[in-house]
Amino acid sequence: MKRISVLTSGGDAPGMNACVRAVVRTALGPGVEVMGIKRGYAGLIDGEIESMGARSVGGIIQRGGTILQTARCEEFKTLAGRRKALRKLNEYGIEGLVVIGGDGSLRGALELHRMGFPVVGVPASIDNDIWGTDMSIGADTALNTALDAIDRIKETASSHGRAFLVEVMGRDCGYLALMTGIAGGAEVVLIPEKDVPLERVAEVVEQAYIKGKTHALIVIAEGAKHKTAEVAAHLQRDEVGFEVRTTILGHVQRGGLPTAFDRLLATRLGAEAVRQLVQGASGVMVGLVGNKIQPIPLEEVVNRRKELDLTFYEMAEVLAR
Amino acid sequence: MKRISVLTSGGDAPGMNACVRAVVRTALGPGVEVMGIKRGYAGLIDGEIESMGARSVGGIIQRGGTILQTARCEEFKTLAGRRKALRKLNEYGIEGLVVIGGDGSLRGALELHRMGFPVVGVPASIDNDIWGTDMSIGADTALNTALDAIDRIKETASSHGRAFLVEVMGRDCGYLALMTGIAGGAEVVLIPEKDVPLERVAEVVEQAYIKGKTHALIVIAEGAKHKTAEVAAHLQRDEVGFEVRTTILGHVQRGGLPTAFDRLLATRLGAEAVRQLVQGASGVMVGLVGNKIQPIPLEEVVNRRKELDLTFYEMAEVLAR
Amino acid sequence: MKRISVLTSGGDAPGMNACVRAVVRTALGPGVEVMGIKRGYAGLIDGEIESMGARSVGGIIQRGGTILQTARCEEFKTLAGRRKALRKLNEYGIEGLVVIGGDGSLRGALELHRMGFPVVGVPASIDNDIWGTDMSIGADTALNTALDAIDRIKETASSHGRAFLVEVMGRDCGYLALMTGIAGGAEVVLIPEKDVPLERVAEVVEQAYIKGKTHALIVIAEGAKHKTAEVAAHLQRDEVGFEVRTTILGHVQRGGLPTAFDRLLATRLGAEAVRQLVQGASGVMVGLVGNKIQPIPLEEVVNRRKELDLTFYEMAEVLAR
Amino acid sequence: MKRISVLTSGGDAPGMNACVRAVVRTALGPGVEVMGIKRGYAGLIDGEIESMGARSVGGIIQRGGTILQTARCEEFKTLAGRRKALRKLNEYGIEGLVVIGGDGSLRGALELHRMGFPVVGVPASIDNDIWGTDMSIGADTALNTALDAIDRIKETASSHGRAFLVEVMGRDCGYLALMTGIAGGAEVVLIPEKDVPLERVAEVVEQAYIKGKTHALIVIAEGAKHKTAEVAAHLQRDEVGFEVRTTILGHVQRGGLPTAFDRLLATRLGAEAVRQLVQGASGVMVGLVGNKIQPIPLEEVVNRRKELDLTFYEMAEVLAR
Repeated sequence: MKRISVLTSGGDAPGMNACVRAVVRTALGPGVEVMGIKRGYAGLIDGEIESMGARSVGGIIQRGGTILQTARCEEFKTLAGRRKALRKLNEYGIEGLVVIGGDGSLRGALELHRMGFPVVGVPASIDNDIWGTDMSIGADTALNTALDAIDRIKETASSHGRAFLVEVMGRDCGYLALMTGIAGGAEVVLIPEKDVPLERVAEVVEQAYIKGKTHALIVIAEGAKHKTAEVAAHLQRDEVGFEVRTTILGHVQRGGLPTAFDRLLATRLGAEAVRQLVQGASGVMVGLVGNKIQPIPLEEVVNRRKELDLTFYEMAEVLAR
Repeated sequence: MKRISVLTSGGDAPGMNACVRAVVRTALGPGVEVMGIKRGYAGLIDGEIESMGARSVGGIIQRGGTILQTARCEEFKTLAGRRKALRKLNEYGIEGLVVIGGDGSLRGALELHRMGFPVVGVPASIDNDIWGTDMSIGADTALNTALDAIDRIKETASSHGRAFLVEVMGRDCGYLALMTGIAGGAEVVLIPEKDVPLERVAEVVEQAYIKGKTHALIVIAEGAKHKTAEVAAHLQRDEVGFEVRTTILGHVQRGGLPTAFDRLLATRLGAEAVRQLVQGASGVMVGLVGNKIQPIPLEEVVNRRKELDLTFYEMAEVLAR
Repeated sequence: MKRISVLTSGGDAPGMNACVRAVVRTALGPGVEVMGIKRGYAGLIDGEIESMGARSVGGIIQRGGTILQTARCEEFKTLAGRRKALRKLNEYGIEGLVVIGGDGSLRGALELHRMGFPVVGVPASIDNDIWGTDMSIGADTALNTALDAIDRIKETASSHGRAFLVEVMGRDCGYLALMTGIAGGAEVVLIPEKDVPLERVAEVVEQAYIKGKTHALIVIAEGAKHKTAEVAAHLQRDEVGFEVRTTILGHVQRGGLPTAFDRLLATRLGAEAVRQLVQGASGVMVGLVGNKIQPIPLEEVVNRRKELDLTFYEMAEVLAR
Repeated sequence: MKRISVLTSGGDAPGMNACVRAVVRTALGPGVEVMGIKRGYAGLIDGEIESMGARSVGGIIQRGGTILQTARCEEFKTLAGRRKALRKLNEYGIEGLVVIGGDGSLRGALELHRMGFPVVGVPASIDNDIWGTDMSIGADTALNTALDAIDRIKETASSHGRAFLVEVMGRDCGYLALMTGIAGGAEVVLIPEKDVPLERVAEVVEQAYIKGKTHALIVIAEGAKHKTAEVAAHLQRDEVGFEVRTTILGHVQRGGLPTAFDRLLATRLGAEAVRQLVQGASGVMVGLVGNKIQPIPLEEVVNRRKELDLTFYEMAEVLAR
């Protein structure tokens, strides 16, 4: 292999830049050139492709977002679109591709692999919802960002004796909400994976009030069965002792300097992706399993659903005493 | 004077604890005892009053919120309520009161002064909307908190090529929004003090797109004429080039460790409040004017409206090129 | 079991409070009372022991340091001292002990176990030098703190075109230095586990200068063979192109709000320690192995030396291009 | 005026980039082109000069350090060197210069003005030691950085019952140390402007121990009469109750994202510098006086010494109770 390429796709995640840097600099070892593709699959189809040297990734390891930018691309979902993409890869003499992104992006990677092009995927998703890796790039940073917000909110909550509902990201996956809830000391956590009746929520908050807690914290995943506004209305109606307030953290969770964990994970994954590609692997994602970085077939990654370990949910309940 | 008291009232603001600490420790110099009143005027009426020593304010200078807590109090707005409050103050042998809070709290302080009780006010408001002081306790911290969120959002905005609407606090006062906008490099700032047509907003965002900016940032004060959702809808309808996203920062802005500026301001104001009270002053607020801490009649404070210097608005426009 | 106790010992580590909280609240489930022992083994011998309820650990999950405090204790290293300690435990009707601390503290725990008292250890050490656990409480926070300092230093280094030597903690173990170096994008990392001649350091820094890098970063563990001052002197003598500056991060690395990772790890370890103790286990440490929390005999923990995976060192070299 | 230039010189300070951005974008209003000079006076002599457009300063407002870089320059201190500098300015058709830097840099600016070239200075110094401005660019950020370190150190100090000596920057000026000390709740502050005998330091620390404080904090300016090591040795000899530890913050204080205050100050100063230059002013520095930005003759700036208001010192003592 003489020339490979790298793109970031889907929602951006802190650590993507550290991963791009690792891809570029690892490839330089065996003398492989790296072409950076801008704006994901859209930029690939449009030929927004440029050579990247060691200096072009200098000073980016600590930056959030992605210097390669990212975009959605409907065209790539069609066969015609993917053919255009392959044509561009060939036009530029590119022999392999590293795709850094979430579930949808990895599906795209699998399609290219099926069409015969060597592709290795790297999991990046602040939701940590990708099967085959214990952690995705960006999840640790997002967790710490959400936690920072919750630490701030708890102070004002305690000063006023309030119950606060904090909505965090996670459409299908409660990982971020559950871990934020445990680390933030939440009284209740609501996630898609677990059905909790509104009556139970009200009861727990009321108990917190009666026990003399100075505030109550309810962390809610975007995709929880009961939506934030619904929970707020119920608690207000029930008069749980505390005044009720709501904050939706929103896109703040995507930004920020990547944590040490995310920079290290992204670096290890990026380096391994290049090694896999150069050794002739394709159709795999590199993932973190325990302490090791391992290849996992993309076929499995996109067809299996990551399960959240619900013993954490029980732990959250025990610790909210 | 042998015994004075201190309370925090209204919305909490980072730095209130540093102010309480300064009140308690400054009073110890001339041998004055300080009684801490919990939960603002509500706690005063209910007699939630305790003696505070030097150690009771140890380790609080860096904490957000207020250890004295705060609450709204309808009863205090009635004459009967204020009479109860005065009765409690006399019951506890308290000869003077320091009120730390925003506009409404200072109105309450003025009422007690009019009824003959020695009171000195200290301005605390993250909105920085109090007449008679250049800065209120908490405004600098809130500004930095909002800015931190905006720095994060800009990264994800740039990665996706998006226009972001960020709503910050400020019902009647655009201070926080305007300063956040300048310091965050916003393309447009919308505040209550300045009417900007939606067409103009769309034009500026579109120009940013055309100039090749990777994102556009619009900072909107809660109390701006055009509400955030309205602006978002207009931009979407207008197809300004960028995709449009919205984040409402919410109560996160109230929390957080106070900045050096807020700790210093709060400390100076708390120390001066005690000096004023001990020297026999009443019916004044201590405020920051230029570099000096000065007493200002509460009568003026509550009757005048702080004006925002709109030359900052022009500067924001110039710098958004 | 009706009553257990918990102490923190050795150097403090962010997350110790989250662990104490988990111990107290987990024990409440099966109705076990928890006694908090102040100042480690010293406080145990002196009988500084108090009952802890659910409320006594409220609001501590986000605080650095340890509310139980910690201290060195020479007396406990003697048989007479340990006998006093056991006597105190019996005096208070305590039937089991959770020891949160580093290597030396776990040795003490093993001694008590050998004398027949039920003890479970929890690894806490910002150096991450404890055998039997992938991560110790505090290491992730320390890593992020060191990284934050390095991000700051890189900016000023780039502005001046300087080579910066940054000394981080780690007397016998290069974990913190190596991971900080990779995540911070260091040109060279010096650790106790790897001997690098000074000539090689100078060569790498000189190469960085010639390649046009705007700065060079050298991260040095406290316990590296060549001390920081020695490296600085050598680089200055060698005239490597960049001006040379040194910063020793020091105790700042011990403080700070614990990260999400450390709060979660500490919570899981604390909960499992109680479960182990209640189930009758003793002489074990609970550790993180892959994704699981597992008991490991203290005998092994204190007799084996944690090895640093030196493939990370090679990765650091590759990425410094 | 058609073309002006801007350089940053001396020690870098967070906010310099925000100032460069303001210079460039403000000048665009009246159609003035801005040339950026790299590496201060050294780059001016060497002709490292490039045109800067609105986009070239995009995304830099939040970055620490200076994109124009900075350097020391012995040659500029000679008449021959300054003649070369003037020659370069004329060569590039530059009609005015904005110099952003500290005391030494402003002296250089004055020399150019005396030789007949239009120059306006902008004060940037984390030490806040420049006469004629209440605050210099970078001082607020450095203060918050030092404070963050102190907040961390206090936690570990409390956990161990220790006295901590923290050395902060400030060779001739105790501003940073004194303000950090007040905002950090220090027991003692040692600054160049105030002579405190070592016996007094020991006495205060011992009193803190006797009063039951869990730690003692001594903040020492680099340039204080008694050096940090000397103070540490004295306290150890005196056996003040607490164990003694030392941390030297070092260059970490120069880095970091600029605070809101510094971004706003830098923006206002940069904008005003351009206005002054375009209106024909020369030989002045723009400074913050109270709430206003005002021109001050450079002649005065470099010949007068900024005095530290020692009433703050008394306040620090009162509050350390």
